Amino acid sequence: MERVSTHLRTLASTLAAGTRLPSTRSLSADLGVGPVTVQRAVALLVAEGLVETRPGTGNFVTGSARRATPRDVAWQAEALGLTRPRVVDTTASGVRAPGADVIPLHWGYPLPELQPEGLVRTALSRAVRHPDALMPAPSSGHPLLRQLLAGELSARTPECDVTADDVLITSGAQSALVAAFRGLASPGDTVVMETPTFWGAIAAATEAGLQIVPVASGPRGLDPEALDRAMRTHGARLVYAQPTWANPTATVWDPTTRSAVLGLLEEHAAFLIEDDWARDLSLGDDHPLPLVCRDPHGHVVYVRSYTKGMSPSIRAAGLVARGPAMQRIRGSRWAADLYVSTVLQLAAAEILGSPGWRRHVGGLGRQLSVRRDALMTAISRHAPSAELTSVPQGGLSLWLRLPEGADPATVAARCLQDGVAISPGDEWFPGEPSGPFVRLGYAAAPTEQFETAARTIGRHLPR
Amino acid sequence: MERVSTHLRTLASTLAAGTRLPSTRSLSADLGVGPVTVQRAVALLVAEGLVETRPGTGNFVTGSARRATPRDVAWQAEALGLTRPRVVDTTASGVRAPGADVIPLHWGYPLPELQPEGLVRTALSRAVRHPDALMPAPSSGHPLLRQLLAGELSARTPECDVTADDVLITSGAQSALVAAFRGLASPGDTVVMETPTFWGAIAAATEAGLQIVPVASGPRGLDPEALDRAMRTHGARLVYAQPTWANPTATVWDPTTRSAVLGLLEEHAAFLIEDDWARDLSLGDDHPLPLVCRDPHGHVVYVRSYTKGMSPSIRAAGLVARGPAMQRIRGSRWAADLYVSTVLQLAAAEILGSPGWRRHVGGLGRQLSVRRDALMTAISRHAPSAELTSVPQGGLSLWLRLPEGADPATVAARCLQDGVAISPGDEWFPGEPSGPFVRLGYAAAPTEQFETAARTIGRHLPR
Repeated sequence: MERVSTHLRTLASTLAAGTRLPSTRSLSADLGVGPVTVQRAVALLVAEGLVETRPGTGNFVTGSARRATPRDVAWQAEALGLTRPRVVDTTASGVRAPGADVIPLHWGYPLPELQPEGLVRTALSRAVRHPDALMPAPSSGHPLLRQLLAGELSARTPECDVTADDVLITSGAQSALVAAFRGLASPGDTVVMETPTFWGAIAAATEAGLQIVPVASGPRGLDPEALDRAMRTHGARLVYAQPTWANPTATVWDPTTRSAVLGLLEEHAAFLIEDDWARDLSLGDDHPLPLVCRDPHGHVVYVRSYTKGMSPSIRAAGLVARGPAMQRIRGSRWAADLYVSTVLQLAAAEILGSPGWRRHVGGLGRQLSVRRDALMTAISRHAPSAELTSVPQGGLSLWLRLPEGADPATVAARCLQDGVAISPGDEWFPGEPSGPFVRLGYAAAPTEQFETAARTIGRHLPR
Repeated sequence: MERVSTHLRTLASTLAAGTRLPSTRSLSADLGVGPVTVQRAVALLVAEGLVETRPGTGNFVTGSARRATPRDVAWQAEALGLTRPRVVDTTASGVRAPGADVIPLHWGYPLPELQPEGLVRTALSRAVRHPDALMPAPSSGHPLLRQLLAGELSARTPECDVTADDVLITSGAQSALVAAFRGLASPGDTVVMETPTFWGAIAAATEAGLQIVPVASGPRGLDPEALDRAMRTHGARLVYAQPTWANPTATVWDPTTRSAVLGLLEEHAAFLIEDDWARDLSLGDDHPLPLVCRDPHGHVVYVRSYTKGMSPSIRAAGLVARGPAMQRIRGSRWAADLYVSTVLQLAAAEILGSPGWRRHVGGLGRQLSVRRDALMTAISRHAPSAELTSVPQGGLSLWLRLPEGADPATVAARCLQDGVAISPGDEWFPGEPSGPFVRLGYAAAPTEQFETAARTIGRHLPR
């Protein structure tokens, strides 16, 4: 019948309104189908308003098929009601795809040449041939990948008793963050965040309906006294942080901060979401122990991204939680997503288990440190008024304070006009920015372009 | 340094508390590293609490490394605060993986032999080799897949002007539903739903903090008068429904219902989420026109699943929305997920564009209709007191009313003890069930098992 109705629709759209359709008998003969099929097809077009039946006379084209009604969506403004916070949108500079003719210092993913392309393609190809590949994965994740994350953590210190049962696999760290925010807090609740911090976490918390209390992070990490004060003042039971190579400052919490924060979590009976986004992005030999390894009682909910070190196509992350917290997070995540494609989970497990993976991570660190140095040198030569806040030992970017009076958005817009994309720092502040910052990534552009980029930036800064 | 600290941790875990560690010099010589490296490794263990330094005496094992602290998560109950609604959990029978020795009439995915396994593996393998495969996809989706969905809709009728710009690709229909609920309504708002309806939609709306107003669906679909009344009484501006082969009743809205509901949406300036979950699961020649094709002004937000007809591994769905509604939904989705793996999107596009796909969909429908008939026959023979509510023309399951007095949960539990998994109907009701129902899937078990299954069910029903 579909063929017949399609034919009739085409006919109706080419005939003038009021034109009579051929009779059922003649259509039936023309199309080589029974009269009942023709009648059913005509009834469908009547239902669609393309044809009207005049009893005793025949079927006539209404004319409404001649063209689509012009779209008018103005009614939606009032229907949608209250407006939403600005931060939840798709304009964050770190995910705006780089144009081909732009030097992408804004971009949050390593260049293809820094990715383990061979490993990833091989792992995906093997995963596709795996007997489990086309089965739905269990909601908590494929056992192999869950076991690998638990093993990675428990191998770090005998204190750490994370098991595969404590692991939930999600489609990327962003899903894990949303599930954690929703699972651990209710709309209107308060979450303490380092400031500046990852815009994705700000968006996820906002989308979960949480109120964000920003606490400044210094060179040693989150100030425990300020954290204690903020939690008391605002009754916060939930903290979000990146203790290791924070995005964007590259800060690593020192051992004293780590112990003090763990103590505060116990004291306040509170949760910390430890976003370990850069685990595979160490620029040296340092691999700080995740906080979750020193937390036997389930205060720390740990999120470990695989996407950044492997490939944007391996959308998989692991989340560790213990106790009822895990049940809540699993529930939120399940309602949002059900499960992650088995193919991607098998590929991630294959990569993690391959001997090439450790080699890749080591080599990536060396390449990133060369790139970091090259960009630092170029900036200090051509844009000396931009002050580097610290030399990153992990992660993908420099965090620079512009001279007073410079407006990051204006500088970014001017640089973009001249073919250099940089990120205004404001997107990393949940509240008001503490100064004029920009973030420059050293992983997404060819190093040969660093000099040009730095020169362009320097040109648009006050001296 | 990692090697050294790992060595020291092993040492600390095997020595009694209070034992002195070897001197820096002797460790340095044993491990073939410089004394500074040893000191840094010791400092790390001190930070981790495994070792303590007694000035002037040396470094001593604290004993805390000897075994993991027993986990105590009792504090979480109070920290997590208000309890959550029951529906958001991971026990829904449609996603509990079937045990190997159970006849899985509860399971929501077609058997591997009904999936286009060759097509899927070939498409995934080709996708892995595609030049875009390892690039992050644009947040709204890969252009190819967006274009294919827009083309599928606009080919149906000249009235329909959906373009690729109106399409958002999400990782499965569940993500699309959550994004739509969050984007179109705020916590505390009301959504009208058909009852019974898909448990995943109930979970998604609940997770989005919405109040659900259930409206009974009859053999012609949602009753427009009841819908009008419910929207007025509760001030609802959002409706969720499956107008074509609803899960679980297999109801198809008739043309009058469709027109009336579209009229009501305009009258109330309201949105309808049209969940077209079974588009590829027609058991005959009928392919009803999606409502979105008759809605020029963006009242209908359309969700089209690819996972069901292709493979659980192709976690991809398309959502169509127009106007500010799309901006809101895109924002919610972006905060939750950022983007979908390019590999999965390319594979879905490859499958949809292949000549084998149409053949597969046609063949699947024929196989499903044979299976439907076989299960219907077996049930009417062995469990005649279970009344089939309608003969499904699409989808994967029968919806049966048990005789009065039967408790679906008890029947399901007894059947499971005897090796047959069925779904108690209660999970499909957002409110109180309107009667004792069970859902039996005909796609996930070998047909040879239908007789045994029906006999087991019959044994546990009142006569």
